[in-house]
This record gives sequence, C-alpha cells and structure tokens, in this order.
Amino acid sequence: MQRSIATVSLSGTLPEKLEAIAAAGFDGVEIFENDLLYYDGSPREIKQMCADLGIDITLFQPFRDFEGCRRDRLPRNLERAERKFDLMQELGTDLVLVCSNALADSVGDEQILVDDLRLLAERAGARGLRIGYEALAWGRHVNTYQQVWNIVRQADHPNLGVLLDSFHTLSLKGDPRAIADIPGEKIFFVQMADAPILAMDVLEWSRHFRCFPGQGEFDLPGFLAPIIQSGYTGPLSLEIFNDGFRAAPPRANAADGLRSLLYLEEKTRARLQQQHATAAPNLDILFATPPASEYDGIEFLEFAVDESLGAKLAHWLERLGFVKAGEHRSKNVTLLRQGDINLILNAEPYSFAHSFFEAHGPSLCATAVRVKDSASALARAVAYKGQPYRGLVGPNELELAAVRAPDGSLIYLVDEHADVYGTDFRLQPSVASGGGLKRIDHMAMALPADSLDSWVLFYKSLLDFEADDEVVLPDPYGLVKSRALRSRCSSIRLPLNISENRNTAISHALSSYRGSGVHHIAFDCDDIFAEVSRAKEAGVPLLDIPLNYYDDLAARFDFDDEFLSKLAYYNVLYDRDAQGGELFHVYTEPFEGRFFFEIIQRKNGYMGYGAANVAVRLAAMAKSRSGGVRHAKL
Amino acid sequence: MQRSIATVSLSGTLPEKLEAIAAAGFDGVEIFENDLLYYDGSPREIKQMCADLGIDITLFQPFRDFEGCRRDRLPRNLERAERKFDLMQELGTDLVLVCSNALADSVGDEQILVDDLRLLAERAGARGLRIGYEALAWGRHVNTYQQVWNIVRQADHPNLGVLLDSFHTLSLKGDPRAIADIPGEKIFFVQMADAPILAMDVLEWSRHFRCFPGQGEFDLPGFLAPIIQSGYTGPLSLEIFNDGFRAAPPRANAADGLRSLLYLEEKTRARLQQQHATAAPNLDILFATPPASEYDGIEFLEFAVDESLGAKLAHWLERLGFVKAGEHRSKNVTLLRQGDINLILNAEPYSFAHSFFEAHGPSLCATAVRVKDSASALARAVAYKGQPYRGLVGPNELELAAVRAPDGSLIYLVDEHADVYGTDFRLQPSVASGGGLKRIDHMAMALPADSLDSWVLFYKSLLDFEADDEVVLPDPYGLVKSRALRSRCSSIRLPLNISENRNTAISHALSSYRGSGVHHIAFDCDDIFAEVSRAKEAGVPLLDIPLNYYDDLAARFDFDDEFLSKLAYYNVLYDRDAQGGELFHVYTEPFEGRFFFEIIQRKNGYMGYGAANVAVRLAAMAKSRSGGVRHAKL
Repeated sequence: MQRSIATVSLSGTLPEKLEAIAAAGFDGVEIFENDLLYYDGSPREIKQMCADLGIDITLFQPFRDFEGCRRDRLPRNLERAERKFDLMQELGTDLVLVCSNALADSVGDEQILVDDLRLLAERAGARGLRIGYEALAWGRHVNTYQQVWNIVRQADHPNLGVLLDSFHTLSLKGDPRAIADIPGEKIFFVQMADAPILAMDVLEWSRHFRCFPGQGEFDLPGFLAPIIQSGYTGPLSLEIFNDGFRAAPPRANAADGLRSLLYLEEKTRARLQQQHATAAPNLDILFATPPASEYDGIEFLEFAVDESLGAKLAHWLERLGFVKAGEHRSKNVTLLRQGDINLILNAEPYSFAHSFFEAHGPSLCATAVRVKDSASALARAVAYKGQPYRGLVGPNELELAAVRAPDGSLIYLVDEHADVYGTDFRLQPSVASGGGLKRIDHMAMALPADSLDSWVLFYKSLLDFEADDEVVLPDPYGLVKSRALRSRCSSIRLPLNISENRNTAISHALSSYRGSGVHHIAFDCDDIFAEVSRAKEAGVPLLDIPLNYYDDLAARFDFDDEFLSKLAYYNVLYDRDAQGGELFHVYTEPFEGRFFFEIIQRKNGYMGYGAANVAVRLAAMAKSRSGGVRHAKL
Repeated sequence: MQRSIATVSLSGTLPEKLEAIAAAGFDGVEIFENDLLYYDGSPREIKQMCADLGIDITLFQPFRDFEGCRRDRLPRNLERAERKFDLMQELGTDLVLVCSNALADSVGDEQILVDDLRLLAERAGARGLRIGYEALAWGRHVNTYQQVWNIVRQADHPNLGVLLDSFHTLSLKGDPRAIADIPGEKIFFVQMADAPILAMDVLEWSRHFRCFPGQGEFDLPGFLAPIIQSGYTGPLSLEIFNDGFRAAPPRANAADGLRSLLYLEEKTRARLQQQHATAAPNLDILFATPPASEYDGIEFLEFAVDESLGAKLAHWLERLGFVKAGEHRSKNVTLLRQGDINLILNAEPYSFAHSFFEAHGPSLCATAVRVKDSASALARAVAYKGQPYRGLVGPNELELAAVRAPDGSLIYLVDEHADVYGTDFRLQPSVASGGGLKRIDHMAMALPADSLDSWVLFYKSLLDFEADDEVVLPDPYGLVKSRALRSRCSSIRLPLNISENRNTAISHALSSYRGSGVHHIAFDCDDIFAEVSRAKEAGVPLLDIPLNYYDDLAARFDFDDEFLSKLAYYNVLYDRDAQGGELFHVYTEPFEGRFFFEIIQRKNGYMGYGAANVAVRLAAMAKSRSGGVRHAKL
C-alpha cells in the first residue's frame, strides 16, 4: 500500500514535517492547508521539495462548507474552489478533500447536495482534478459514509468519490462493514486515526485526542478490513489531531506513525484471514511479517554498574536471598540467582553496559526475554523498524539476538532451553539460594509523560504485547498515570508510569536517570511473611507504612488483630479484588535513590498490581525522600 | 463565616497542607481520609497540629456506600462506621460526610434509606457525633439535594443533617433555589467548588476539573444565596479535586482558595441585595469590601531597562512615532508619548525597576490604570489580600497607590485627571508626536501554564475584571491557550497566554523572562496603512507574513487585487467577524527577542483579538526565531 500521513499530525515548520515524513519511510503526504498558508515558500517550491524527498502529495485538504451552502453563496464558493484548484495544480496534486458542510444555515435537501457536488466535480474534472467527499461526524446534514456513498452514487461523476476517515465513523459507533459493498475504485482516499474512548463532545475529541493506530481503543482492523474487501488499492493515510503530537519531535513521531500503519496492516491481514475472506483479492498489499513469538518470562535482567556500586548492589541482593552463581570468564560481570530469577551485574569497562552507566548511572541496561524462536522474533522486530544490536562478543562467547528498547536499553531475545550462561560464565557448582523468591512478577518503568504512546506502540508491534487500561494514581505532589504492557501469556509484565508534575516519585526517577528507567522490580514468592521476615533480619531497608493504613484495613476487612499486627510489623500491604483474589506486597527503600524492589504474593488469581495501595506507597516514598524528617515547624 | 478547605484541594504531605491552610487565613479544614491514612502520625497528633496552627477540623470525609447497602452487609458497615467514629473522636471532630451510595447493588427503597441513616445517626449521636448526608451526582439512587432533604426530614434525628456541595447540584443543572426552604440548622455543612462547563462523564469531571470559585463557569452566588437565605451560618468550605492543584505549591494555592471564597461571598452579598432579600437576616456574615472602581484605560506603562537598552528601546519607539516628552527631575527615567499613550523607560539604579531588570532583563515592570478613586481601589485590593507597594519617593515626587501583580510587577492605581507627570518630570513644551497611534488597545502576557487560574482570580477579585472564554491556538511547536481579562468597560484588555510545550513562542518568552512577562502591546489607530507605511519607512522591522496567507484571503473574501497587494506589501493581517466587524493588524519583530508591538485598527465594532490570524503570526515568529534561514537540506 502507499503509506501517507497528513502534515497536521506532526509538529514543526512545513519543511521539518516533510523531512520527517520522508525519513520515516512514508510514500506520501497530505498537505493540510494551514501548513501551506503559514509557509513562506510557494506551492511550486513545496512540490519540488516533496519530489526531492521522494514523497507524493496524496491529498490537499480540507475544503469546507461547500455542498448545500446558502444558495446566494454558491457562486462565491465556486470561485473559492477555483482558487484552491489553482493552488493544487501548482502543488501537483489532483485530489482534494471536501468535508461535509457543518454550517447551521446549510441545507440538507439531497438533490441539492448531489447537484452541488456534481457541479464541483465537473469544475475539477475540467482541470483533471478529483474530489474526495468525506462525512464529518459533526456535519450538519451528512455525517455517515453511507450518506456520502449515496450522494456520490447519485452524482455519478468520474471525478467524484468517497473519502473515508475511521474517526468519523467509529466515534459515532458506526458499523463499517457496509464499506465492503462500495466499489473500490469509487473510494478515492482512506484516512486512519485511532483514539481513546472518551465520553465528550465529538468535535473536541477529534481535534485533540486522536492518536496513531494501536495507541487508542478503536477497532481499526475492523474498519480497514471492509475497505480491502471493497478492492480499494489507494493510499492509507494518517490524519491525527493530537495536542501532544503538535509538540513532539517530528522525526520520532513520524517513525511511530509508520510503525502504527504497519501494525494496523498486520492486524487487518490477520482479521481477513480469520474471516476466510475469499473476497479480498488484494490481501497481499498489506504488510506481512513473521508472527510474534511465544514468550516464557524473563530470562535475566542486566544492570549497568561500576565496580563499587556493583559490589553494593550485589550485597543488597544477597540480603534479599540471592546468591552469586557465577563470574564471567573474561569480563567484570557477575551473575546472581534465586529461584528462576537471574540478575547480571555488569561493571565491564568499554562495554555497552558501561556506556549506559556513563549516561544514566546505576540502572537496568538490558532485559532478556525467553522466546520460542529468537531468529524469527528478531526478524519481526527488524521488519517493524526496530534497531537490532550486535555487541562486542569475545571468542567462544554466546551471541544473543537483541533490539533496542525505546529508552536505549537492550531487549535480548533468548531461545527457550538455550544454555545462556554455560558458555560465558564460570558457574558455581549448584549453590542453594538463601530465599524463596521464585520469579520476576513485573518490572515497572518510569517514562517521560509524552513518551507513553510511543512505548505502547513499540511493545505492541515489535513484540506483540497487549496493553491494559490506564489507571490514575495520586502521588502527594501530583498525579501518576500507569499503563501495564503484557505478553499475551502474561509471563512478562511491564507497568509503565508517567507523571506530568515535577515532584512526584516518577519525576524524581526520571531526573536521576536523565531519561526513562526502571522504577521497581517485583519478585514473586509463595510465603510473603517468610520472605519479608528473612529480608528484615538480613537488614534490607523496607519502606515504612503508616499505622493509619492498618486501622483502615481493620475497618474494611474482617481481620483479627494478630494478623493485622503482623501485616503492620512487616509493612505488608494488602488488596482484595472483586473475585476474592488477594495480593500481599512489600517494598524496599530505593537503591541509591533510584530503583527499588517489591516482594509480592498473589493468591486466588489476583491479576492486578495493587493499584489501591499505590497512593500510600507514593506518600511513604515522598516522606522517605525528604529523609523522614518531620516538618520543622511542627 | 467560618472559612474552610478540604486537604484534598492541596498538594503535599498532611503537615505541609495544614500549614498552608493556616497561613492563608482559613479558620478550618476538612480532613480527607486518604491524607490521614498516608500520614505516619496518629490522629491525636493531627488534632494537636491543627490546634497549634489555630484551625478547626470542620469535617471528616468521606464515608461511602452505607445507606441502602446489601442487607447482609449492614452489620459489617456499621462496624466500619464505629471504627471511623473512634478515629473522629481522636481527631476531635464531630461531623462526618456520608455520601450517597454509588454501588450498583445498593437498594433505593426510600424507607430503607431513611432507616439506615437514622440508625447511623443514633450510633453517632451516642458518641456526640453528627452525620452530614450528601447527594453525589453519580449516586445510584440519590443524586439531588431535594432527595437528601426528603430523607433527612423523614429520618428526623437531631444528629442527621443535609450536606451540600455546589458541584453535585450544578453539574447536573439542578436548580438550587429550593435550598432556601430547608431550615438553616438542618444544613450541617456546605462545600463549594466551581468548574469549567465540560461535556464529559460527571465523575471524571468532578475528580479532575473542579476549580476555585470564580475560576470556572458555575453560577456559585446563585448556589450560595439560597443557603444564606435558609439561615445557615456554618462553615463555607472548598473541596476541589483538580489535577493541577495536586501538583501546585500548596501555600500559593491555599491563598488563592481563600481569595476565591471572599470573592464568592462578595458576589453573593450583591446578588442578595439585588434581590432585596429581606429573608436574609445574616447577610453580614458575608465578606464586604469597597466596591470596584470604574476604569478609564491605561495611564502609562513602565519598562525596566538599563542605560543602553533604554536608549535602544527609545529609538525603537521613536521609529513607531513616539516622541520624548519628558525626563524625570532626579532619576534616569524617560517619558515617551503618542496620542493617549504614555510609556516610561526606567533605567534608574537602586530602584524597583532596576531590581526588576536584574531579575527579568528588559521587561514591563509596571502598569498604571486610571481609576475613579485610587484610595478605595487600593483598599479593595488590600481587603483581597493584595500586597500593597510603597516605593522610594523623592522629595516633591508624586506617590502613587500600587499593588503587586501576580508576576511581581506593579499595578499603579492612578486617579482620573491626576497630574501624574507634572510633579516628577521636566516636560517638553508640547511636541507633536510623529505618528497617529492613539491608545493602548491591549497588552498580552505570557504565563506559565499552571498560573492562569491564579491570574484570572487575582484580576477578578482585586480589580473586578471579567474573563472571556479560553481560545486554543496552534503554534508550530505546540498549542497555545489564551484567555482575555477585561475591565467591565473594556478600556483595559489583557489577553493571558499559556503553553504547555517547550518550543512555542510563549515558552520562549517565559524562558527569556525567567517567569511571566509581557508578550506584546497593541496600539490602536484610525488608519493602519498610514501608520504602517510610516513605520516601515522609519525602519521598524515588521513581521514577515507569507504570500500564501494572502492567496487564501483572496479565496475567502471579495478583495480586489490592488487592495490585496497592499495588505501583503505591508504585512497587514485581516479578520472579519460574523457581524461584519473588521480587524486590520500588523506586528513588529520582537525587541531583544522578547516583547513586540502590534498596530491595530478595529472597524464596525470588531471586539476580538484576531484569533484567526494568531496561527500565521506564531508560524512567522517561529521562522523569525530560527533566523529566517531555510532548512539546510532543502
């Protein structure tokens, strides 16, 4: 398919936008009129600029409030159209978007609409131009594609066709399936936009909250599938009005846009194949990629440290029950183990970890995930424009497939049953670990507020993860938003946390990392009190939870006093879901003021992350940051 | 009235909140339960803290989902209530907010609701505690104050009363007038919150978008008036859930909160007086202040400069047609004049202007407004907790009443017909000015995004200004929001501009000022082409507008080519409103990369600020900032 994007979807001046669009690999661009008006080069210069960059101008848009206008205004409106036709010819594009009239004084008489649009199509046709007619969700008389197709069919002019925009249909809960019945050659253009489902005015929703396919909640494969079935082979274009995108760096954002189209195409292809859609002769115009791998949890986490912080972190982990299981044969790299958990501390100079340490301080620099087939997983990531990574591998060292995560850290793709450590590490003959931590339950990240959508798209497309709904949580110094990513089997869970305010725990993490970074790592166990008691005895600093929290637990649940005292003594937080699932969890103080650890026990199928307790944890962290000192004056 | 605020309205730890509340001058505080749960001191310690700070605990809240609960849960719920009663007694407060049950499985049978609440009131009464019953807008069965009063009346227990919250009534477009018929002593508590009118889910609206009275769009005097008429004399309390407030500095925000209550009281008193409300015996419990002054435009603007920048700015202004009209008798201060416009350039060392210059660079450090009675205007500002300013006044110099604006600059309150300049300045014998600029049309400010509400409240309360609706405008690097403040006569107009994004024109202004500052100053004239042609000839650098803009004007309006060429030649922007009002305006390049000037001509009663042209102006400014250099690769 020809992949395209509207200039309004990106920030910057027109040349900045066009460059970003070309660099991302789009084939074409919709010129949004205002971007042209505000630019001080002529339309001819823009035409040349696009030609030099190798992108087509797929559409000029919008032309508003034409059909059914007040009758006395028709000549003036035709004159206005001719001026814009001049401009289109200078630009070198033959298609203009005419959106349905939204004026209160416009008329809805069908014959008038048909006649007006036929007249406009004749004028356009005389110059070899074409009209794409689109239903705005807030059009005064025309707001569905069914109405548009009815009018286009009656006008019956070769230079007039249907223009589809997913937002205008899906925001009104329209059913897109009848699109399949429109002849593909009468669909002139297709615009795709996703959005979160919001109960608000549709015009405001459209102008500020659209997002790239896969970032919102619309069923976009369900919209694109009937378009492919219709036989449409024209451009697939993104038209995204989004407040954040208007300020985001255009190159990175355009790259996300292209990735989102590929993702949409893959999902649409799967949908059509599922439906055994024999009536889709042109399925092959859709992007195809190796299917996603199956996952089997996290193989290891690698921390970037230097010698002294490495020793310090190792000591922390040993107090949590980890044991040193091996040393790298040739590098300053240590392996710690407990249960199914492997943690690598990398203090090797001139390594990837070292440069990561230089940039971010002590931090998580790599995550290894277990996959069924690493070669195919890597091929998929690369097809989605992921950046593969090849490290410095010594003689007789294992080389692992890797791709860069959005924060620059590495995601290793490790084959199940591969001997990951035997080649590189001198392993200790089996040592019993000191604790009962079993596996990595989840790994929470702190991100800059404006990068959440980009991360979600990265994990959805390259790794085929799913994203849970966003939850909003109060930090004493502002709100924190959290959205969890999961592998489909839930063996890898990655809650992403953002905050738009300066003094929250998330913002403190961001500033200490100078960028995104791991916020905490949760370890699963079968007996939380055994683990916490061992940790406490070993001197692990636990996050102190106020007694008032336990008084409230007493009011809410039917616990006996002894059990409550035990929870309070060990600073264990408690949550219960509607299905009776239970969560027990406890937090450590942060390591070097950065990431911290959580010990967690899930009972009866509890699936969440203890959102009900995040506020008390954030308040305790705020107090801990301020040194736990009571306010001077009180 | 006893003035109170809920802890949830402010950011910070509980002690930080309580201190801010006391410092702002509130008499009481509602303890929001979560603030208590997350605090590691006991309820007794909080009681002591409030006593030390001199504030009462007016309310403990909320107690949820009690009345009409599933019958098997009633004993457990009563047990829960007793636990909270324990806590209230430790806190030393006797009133708890019980909000209407929002659970899907709650029952709506009126007799059950009455019985449940009577039972709870009996339990409370046995301990000398009281229940305030509130209708949540999203309550399952009870969501109006009329229902609440009906239930409270039937339960007929001295320890059960009505709790009113403006948001829950006004968000559902409820009519508050019948509140006047509830006996005042059966209203136990009143919570006030304003909000912008938003077409969205009421629960989300309530939890994230409430604001202080006067900052939103609800008719709050219309809500408070019937409460006063009922004979209610209890606390007036703010309960504001607002994402911004959760991150704002608590002291400044609490001060805004108190100011908003005073403003609400003044407006309510006026409303009741207007209604000749003889049935309001306790009108005097409402805040009273000198009435607002009438305004007659801006007397002068004062710029903080140093010697060399002062000379440079004077030269700029002279090219715009200003003439030097006087020098200060003893200070390094110059007066420039044109029409009714007086501009003062202050380069005096050891002056207020000098310290302002040190902090912000060349900037506007004072605005003098003409008022009918400066003494009364100052008294009003001080009553609203404005900070009066007394400068260093030399012998035989005029002393002007002044108050600090939110950005630390000064607002002088100057009596009409006062001889402002004769005392201090050696005035030139009348010199004809070189141009036809007549008066200051408006003065646009750039503010940090989170301070807009605070500014609006400042001007509404201290100066009795009005605020227009917010408009959203696209800068190439993000959205800009603008809200104009006006004196009621419109002789002083002050559009306030904010942007949440880093690279917009507004953000550049903020970073150059290290804070808020003037963005541009618009001068009115009768013949824009005469003024612009003179300015152009004098070498004033005008902001270059792309030709494409004029092609679009040609398509939209019926101008002849000669007139269009003239607009384009002089870079004049054009707008026309629905009533045929017309605006012509032109911008200069910024002075020292900071503020710039606008020349403006309004025709046929055009009232706006040319919002339709702001995007093209912002794009031109972005290009001008980047030095007007075309993108290297193109």
